[in-house]
Amino acid sequence: MKWENFSKLESYKKLAGAGRVDVKAELSGENGAERVKNYQVPMASGMVYSYAAKAVDDGLIDILQELADEAQLQEKYEALYNGEVINTGEKRLVLHQLTRGQLGQDVIADGENKREFYAEQQSRADAFARKIHKGEIVNENGEKFTTAVQVGIGGSDLGPRALYLSLESWAKVNDTLKMEAKFISNVDPDDASAVLSGIDLAHALFVLVSKSGTTLETLTNETFCKDALKKAGLDPSCHMVAVTSATSPLANNPDYLDSFYIDDYIGGRYSAMSAVGGVILALAFGPEVFARIQAGAADADKAATEKDIRKNAAMLDALIGVYERNFLGYGVTAVLPYSQALSRFPAHLQQLDMESNGKSVNRFGEPVDYKTGPVIFGEPGTNGQHSFYQLLHQGTDIVPLQFVGFRKSQMENDVLIEDSTSQQKLCANVAAQIVAFACGKDDDNRNKYFAGGRPSSIIVGDQLTPEALGTLLAHFENKVMFQGFVWNVNSFDQEGVQLGKVLAKRVLAGDTDGALAEYSKLLDI
Amino acid sequence: MKWENFSKLESYKKLAGAGRVDVKAELSGENGAERVKNYQVPMASGMVYSYAAKAVDDGLIDILQELADEAQLQEKYEALYNGEVINTGEKRLVLHQLTRGQLGQDVIADGENKREFYAEQQSRADAFARKIHKGEIVNENGEKFTTAVQVGIGGSDLGPRALYLSLESWAKVNDTLKMEAKFISNVDPDDASAVLSGIDLAHALFVLVSKSGTTLETLTNETFCKDALKKAGLDPSCHMVAVTSATSPLANNPDYLDSFYIDDYIGGRYSAMSAVGGVILALAFGPEVFARIQAGAADADKAATEKDIRKNAAMLDALIGVYERNFLGYGVTAVLPYSQALSRFPAHLQQLDMESNGKSVNRFGEPVDYKTGPVIFGEPGTNGQHSFYQLLHQGTDIVPLQFVGFRKSQMENDVLIEDSTSQQKLCANVAAQIVAFACGKDDDNRNKYFAGGRPSSIIVGDQLTPEALGTLLAHFENKVMFQGFVWNVNSFDQEGVQLGKVLAKRVLAGDTDGALAEYSKLLDI
Repeated sequence: MKWENFSKLESYKKLAGAGRVDVKAELSGENGAERVKNYQVPMASGMVYSYAAKAVDDGLIDILQELADEAQLQEKYEALYNGEVINTGEKRLVLHQLTRGQLGQDVIADGENKREFYAEQQSRADAFARKIHKGEIVNENGEKFTTAVQVGIGGSDLGPRALYLSLESWAKVNDTLKMEAKFISNVDPDDASAVLSGIDLAHALFVLVSKSGTTLETLTNETFCKDALKKAGLDPSCHMVAVTSATSPLANNPDYLDSFYIDDYIGGRYSAMSAVGGVILALAFGPEVFARIQAGAADADKAATEKDIRKNAAMLDALIGVYERNFLGYGVTAVLPYSQALSRFPAHLQQLDMESNGKSVNRFGEPVDYKTGPVIFGEPGTNGQHSFYQLLHQGTDIVPLQFVGFRKSQMENDVLIEDSTSQQKLCANVAAQIVAFACGKDDDNRNKYFAGGRPSSIIVGDQLTPEALGTLLAHFENKVMFQGFVWNVNSFDQEGVQLGKVLAKRVLAGDTDGALAEYSKLLDI
Repeated sequence: MKWENFSKLESYKKLAGAGRVDVKAELSGENGAERVKNYQVPMASGMVYSYAAKAVDDGLIDILQELADEAQLQEKYEALYNGEVINTGEKRLVLHQLTRGQLGQDVIADGENKREFYAEQQSRADAFARKIHKGEIVNENGEKFTTAVQVGIGGSDLGPRALYLSLESWAKVNDTLKMEAKFISNVDPDDASAVLSGIDLAHALFVLVSKSGTTLETLTNETFCKDALKKAGLDPSCHMVAVTSATSPLANNPDYLDSFYIDDYIGGRYSAMSAVGGVILALAFGPEVFARIQAGAADADKAATEKDIRKNAAMLDALIGVYERNFLGYGVTAVLPYSQALSRFPAHLQQLDMESNGKSVNRFGEPVDYKTGPVIFGEPGTNGQHSFYQLLHQGTDIVPLQFVGFRKSQMENDVLIEDSTSQQKLCANVAAQIVAFACGKDDDNRNKYFAGGRPSSIIVGDQLTPEALGTLLAHFENKVMFQGFVWNVNSFDQEGVQLGKVLAKRVLAGDTDGALAEYSKLLDI
């Protein structure tokens, strides 16, 4: 297997020299219909990835296929899930796909079968959740727990939180919301104070999540929660479980009711399907629902093994994104789910993408001579239409768009106004936006003129079910992974977060001079 | 007064030719402390704008001052608040500053004194809120209302929601949370369903906000709320008030308990201090707290009249932003409040900034030959540190950062761990990040190398009080306004949102062909 910089590849030169595609011309007029029909890739869970509104054509897709082959995307993915040390900087395997299925050969590490290890932890979490739901594990007064509170930050917060919010309403109407979940993440004391003041502490179960067991924010917030429990006359050790690595100070600790384990082969931002998300989501929705999310993700992982990019949505999405970044010069991607339930999904993708591929060195620590990961942001539609879409339509920069839409709502409670339901209005809006962005509109009044040529893709599903959610999550994980392979970066470390931590410690220790001392004064530390 | 394109100005050429400033060199070492002390501007409400970590020096600030003078920023602001037709495309005055104070001369329009009109509407809203709080206006069963639900989208949602969340915890500990507030915005039926299923309908008061009275999402959600009330055996007309223009179908309508008015001179994204935010916030926090937010904003408006940019935080912030956008080539700005209460403030600024200045034509409808408004995104710190900061520190693009921090927490409930409180840790982190971004760190291991040179500013306040919040809101409104003046765009219209609306109507009417028809099929409309 060859790990080469993107700019050294033959396909890089071909892409640089290839003619640009005018998406406005391609999608406008009657040919547009054929294009929409043809430029679709089936995904797992009955979803579909549509790229008709991207600035690509068959010739360009052929070069992207050459790139996929030349960069050995499939081989690298295979090596990853078969247990090669893909996270070279930290000398770690990258096994998050194994949390939800067995893709390739058995991976044995640290003397154990890793798929079995992850499955066993989830099975323990499931059994624990069932006992909580049945009232077999109760608080110090023999009463059932009603609320689960996740205490974690970054990957221990954003993914699990996004998934919880994605299915909270769905679980209510499907009668499978077992416990309400809350989240505490920020070291800002107002975060913990606000959450703790809004819950029934006596019936709250805290899930403390830190792989290392040393995360500043999480340990601080743990103390916050313990203090609140003690002040309420409760015993913290009856109200807490830990999700951590087997070697952390939180493991096998009498301070907790139980501990569930992860390991170094699951990066924080890729950990939503491990015990990091598995404990809180099994508690909230029940183990069966969490298993359905995992199944949707596992199916997406399988679909991503396809070599033909016209049949592999994650890989095609990745390659089009690379093309837009490196040859069309677009530095930002907006993620726009037309689903209120996905309100925090863009915040998860923001971490997933920007922390994975926001790098300036390749996997060997050498500077790269091309752009890597873009800025990711987004809000749900139609809300965004009444906010930042103005710039997306008529601003001076082009921002590629990643839409997500579902034919049915989650709660299927709706109203008919002017002959259409709210759900139909929602879907009509996303269809309209795709065409508006790509095709624009001529107008002699330049103020009302839309240049068009603003590319987008859309992932369409029938309904945001647990399976669809798992597929969506894994799609983006795999997209980011493939892009990292093309850019030849290590998508699984995050050295860029270290310097701030070191300097913050110096501030707290009073070990500052120059600007740092003066900023500390300004903030009265 | 002269409205000229930025690129025609003498100061534009000077900025293009001026030497670039190495912020890493300037801020590193012992000189850094002096720089932090000197590069500060006092703001209203005792806050301060610090720009020591921006890539500017005294010489460059002098040219930015020339730009401010040449572009007549002060004169244009004065013309705006004195009632000139600044929103030329829509032929409207721009009077949002008048909602919170009288800055210049009386503005008479539509036969009335506009300051008096806005003040009267707020005074009516205040009286209404007091009656609700005292139980003088009650539901059909003679019971007090306990929850206020804002139904609105875009500017009728993001600003009021951000402000409510900013002060919810503060109001709780200061014993002035009169009613809990909820928000319904998205046309996605799951949004209204989720909110309505989570509240006590019998004691809920709905605030329906639409200036035109014709906003698709808001009217749809109104029906949703009415249906839910009727199903619960309640009378919708006893549970709703409207905030709208005097000529809208919602005005003086027996369907509502009362109506409060705005007019065409308050753009949606600038409307948080009008009745759009004033009704819901007076209900939630009481009229006195809302008056304090307004006072903080009015003080910031006054501070923005200063001609010397070294004493005018909003103007200096605007000019540095323009310099970064047009001469350093940065296309994105991240807003990073180190305050969990400001969790949705970046979403408000995203609309404010991107909808105002995301334009490609000048105020006369002629294409401009320079970049205008950047993409804005952000999340609270320290959360972001564990998410997308990797890219900000080590990515291939530089993203200017706008930090906000407070010396004290809102709830002042804290824990001491390793000799520091959570609040101290929060403040230490933001101080550390500023220096880490600007100064970087050398390392032979390129993976652990930080290039630095990543510019930021910080707004520091003592505590996030109502006054501080008002100041913060107005600071950004005025910053965006000044940038619009420099770019010579109309920051007060939003023609870019129209095309999507038109096409969505065609989809719902079945009037589609080509790509639009096929996307409609894909989404099963």
